[in-house]
Amino acid sequence: MKVLGLITEYNPLHNGHIYHLNQALKLSRADYAVCVMSGNFIQRGEPAVIDKWARAKSALMSGIDLVIELPVIFAMSSAELFAYGAVKILDSLGVTDYVCFGSEHGRIEELERIASVLCSEPPPYREMLKEQLSKGLSYPVAREQALIRHFNETEGFGLNIEGIIRSSNNILGIEYIKTLKKLQSPIIPLTIPRIGNTYGTGYMTGSISSATAIRKYLSDNLHGLPGQGLKQVLPEASLEILAEEFAQGRGPIFSSSFEDILISIIRKMTSSQIREYPYVSEGLENRIKNAADESGSFEELVDAILTKRYTRTRIQRTLFCIMNSITAKDLNEFMAQGGPQYIRILGFNGKGRKLLSIIRRTASLPVIAKTSDFKNSTDACIRKMLALEAFSTDMYVLGYENAAFKKAGQEFTRNIIRLD
Amino acid sequence: MKVLGLITEYNPLHNGHIYHLNQALKLSRADYAVCVMSGNFIQRGEPAVIDKWARAKSALMSGIDLVIELPVIFAMSSAELFAYGAVKILDSLGVTDYVCFGSEHGRIEELERIASVLCSEPPPYREMLKEQLSKGLSYPVAREQALIRHFNETEGFGLNIEGIIRSSNNILGIEYIKTLKKLQSPIIPLTIPRIGNTYGTGYMTGSISSATAIRKYLSDNLHGLPGQGLKQVLPEASLEILAEEFAQGRGPIFSSSFEDILISIIRKMTSSQIREYPYVSEGLENRIKNAADESGSFEELVDAILTKRYTRTRIQRTLFCIMNSITAKDLNEFMAQGGPQYIRILGFNGKGRKLLSIIRRTASLPVIAKTSDFKNSTDACIRKMLALEAFSTDMYVLGYENAAFKKAGQEFTRNIIRLD
Repeated sequence: MKVLGLITEYNPLHNGHIYHLNQALKLSRADYAVCVMSGNFIQRGEPAVIDKWARAKSALMSGIDLVIELPVIFAMSSAELFAYGAVKILDSLGVTDYVCFGSEHGRIEELERIASVLCSEPPPYREMLKEQLSKGLSYPVAREQALIRHFNETEGFGLNIEGIIRSSNNILGIEYIKTLKKLQSPIIPLTIPRIGNTYGTGYMTGSISSATAIRKYLSDNLHGLPGQGLKQVLPEASLEILAEEFAQGRGPIFSSSFEDILISIIRKMTSSQIREYPYVSEGLENRIKNAADESGSFEELVDAILTKRYTRTRIQRTLFCIMNSITAKDLNEFMAQGGPQYIRILGFNGKGRKLLSIIRRTASLPVIAKTSDFKNSTDACIRKMLALEAFSTDMYVLGYENAAFKKAGQEFTRNIIRLD
Repeated sequence: MKVLGLITEYNPLHNGHIYHLNQALKLSRADYAVCVMSGNFIQRGEPAVIDKWARAKSALMSGIDLVIELPVIFAMSSAELFAYGAVKILDSLGVTDYVCFGSEHGRIEELERIASVLCSEPPPYREMLKEQLSKGLSYPVAREQALIRHFNETEGFGLNIEGIIRSSNNILGIEYIKTLKKLQSPIIPLTIPRIGNTYGTGYMTGSISSATAIRKYLSDNLHGLPGQGLKQVLPEASLEILAEEFAQGRGPIFSSSFEDILISIIRKMTSSQIREYPYVSEGLENRIKNAADESGSFEELVDAILTKRYTRTRIQRTLFCIMNSITAKDLNEFMAQGGPQYIRILGFNGKGRKLLSIIRRTASLPVIAKTSDFKNSTDACIRKMLALEAFSTDMYVLGYENAAFKKAGQEFTRNIIRLD
């Protein structure tokens, strides 16, 4: 029995994801496909366009056997923590043989070489990084510079290092490998070259389009169900589920769905309260506070905070952490506790149920199928992580248009998705 | 020179207000009409349907000479505090000869008799009140019961006490007179019987309709400018201003405009944080907290909090105090400091400017024409009251549809309304 692990957001699930899944199954010859999926908030610091239950269903209808949630703490975090959380969960299952990710580069050996440098941090690299940071560059940019100079000056071997580490999926992949090394995990990393639209491209073309382009299409065509334009880029199951969610008034959800909430919450806060949230330092709290005063929309809010030092993504993560009451202290405490505290099942099909019964014996973390059973867990870390997850859902549902679905507590009342 | 004072909300200004103003000028033979007007939040615990600058302009275009703001602390308060704040300001001008209010009853002597009982609190009345409160009745209901029994048993004189004190405008009027007595003010109270639709009636009929009916009409006809239906009940100036505000995307504003903001803010709070807000006691904090979890709309939120002990109005005031960060401590501190800390001018016409130059010499409180001059006042009470006003405006503007008008700080940047 071979188990393939994927790390996904499925926001929304599109033909590129189906291509990746099929290629990964072919490459790994695995019998089972498990995915660790972001919940209601994603790595770019945004709410997911439809909720995690709907996206888990799309995944199961498209060939995934078991969907596990990446807790919001990691899902809405830097590439490093995102990768750490997701890989740690795949590793903790005790059954995962492979993790297969899409990358622009497509060659695993070279990504592994870069990951090794990040893991071991040889002195020349470390000095370079320090130097770049002292210039006031953001951490991702400084690391990029340090890696480039390290490879060019120390161990080049003809590697097009610049080309590799400027692509976001290569970076995530490198982080996955880094975590595998750190955890001394037996999981074998595989990569498949990404095809079709480049990540982040704004327009839908051909049958494979980026999730960003698809979300842009949804945002530009708000009042109408997903139509002709989406048919060529989404598998039928995903399209059906989007249509159903929109018809119910549960989406599409965008960052702008929360703009009044975010602006009002920040206007009510003091700068020193804002300083308690992740990635806020060096006066960023004042920029955030002033930006909320000066802005009338989400876009204006982020634009008013932006500086050379902070990426848009990082700012958005901070904003949604503020909304979701996730503090820097929370993040640090969970990292001190080894990261993810549980394996939370969002859904499974028949095969997935079999696999789950095996995982229940092999897993090194508690398996949560029914969240309400863990609401009052005697383990404070489990309780806290689940409470933050539940609260972020309590906020997320306020983005629905239909008031009937805005009630809090859905983390404990929505059923696990079963596809038999 | 005779000066008439009115206490108004003009939410929005309608034919009934014009009738009242004309009758009051006739009755008092006054040369000047001054009004103390609620700002962006009104006594029923709701946001005003258009902002205070627009409503001040309506007032000036309809015959009022000088518009003074009732600070939000008093504007969104019980009849007692509302009346105290407004009458105190009229008194502090040093020029006001009359205050004239509309009442269902329409006979000033009998209202004065009731006010005297409330002022002196004779022992039988006080005992009755205590008895009723101990039964768990809300304060307004308990007071009503105590007054009824006091008058029926002690000094009846054929007064239809029940009929009088069950009407909201009679109650406000009685509170105005009570405050005049307490302040030993020389201002003479006058009353004019209200005509047309009863306060709070849901439908518009005839040429005089209640503000409630008009707001209901606006809410039912959201997407269209004020049309034919409003022409019969609003003076032209008021209609024009409403149309202009709606066209700009600055209204109409309803409680529901803030439902996501309110629900998200309360979901983020602990019960003990909620307990710091006005009128929250005896476990109401838990009801509010649970209601925010269970609700997806403003209506559901209020309905879920309602009990026999707390009126809808009182609950709404608490909710908007929470949104506006106005705590019970703030309220108590201002009352300990004698109530209003300043006379804040929202607008004037040519006559009003002349009157204002007189008031600058006679007033017993500082006169604020330019708020930015007082932002850093050395008087901490003035600074605080103005800061709360400014913050409630920072929240109110988030109710506008047009993002361009949602910026904070408008309390200090919007100009005084001049009508020459």
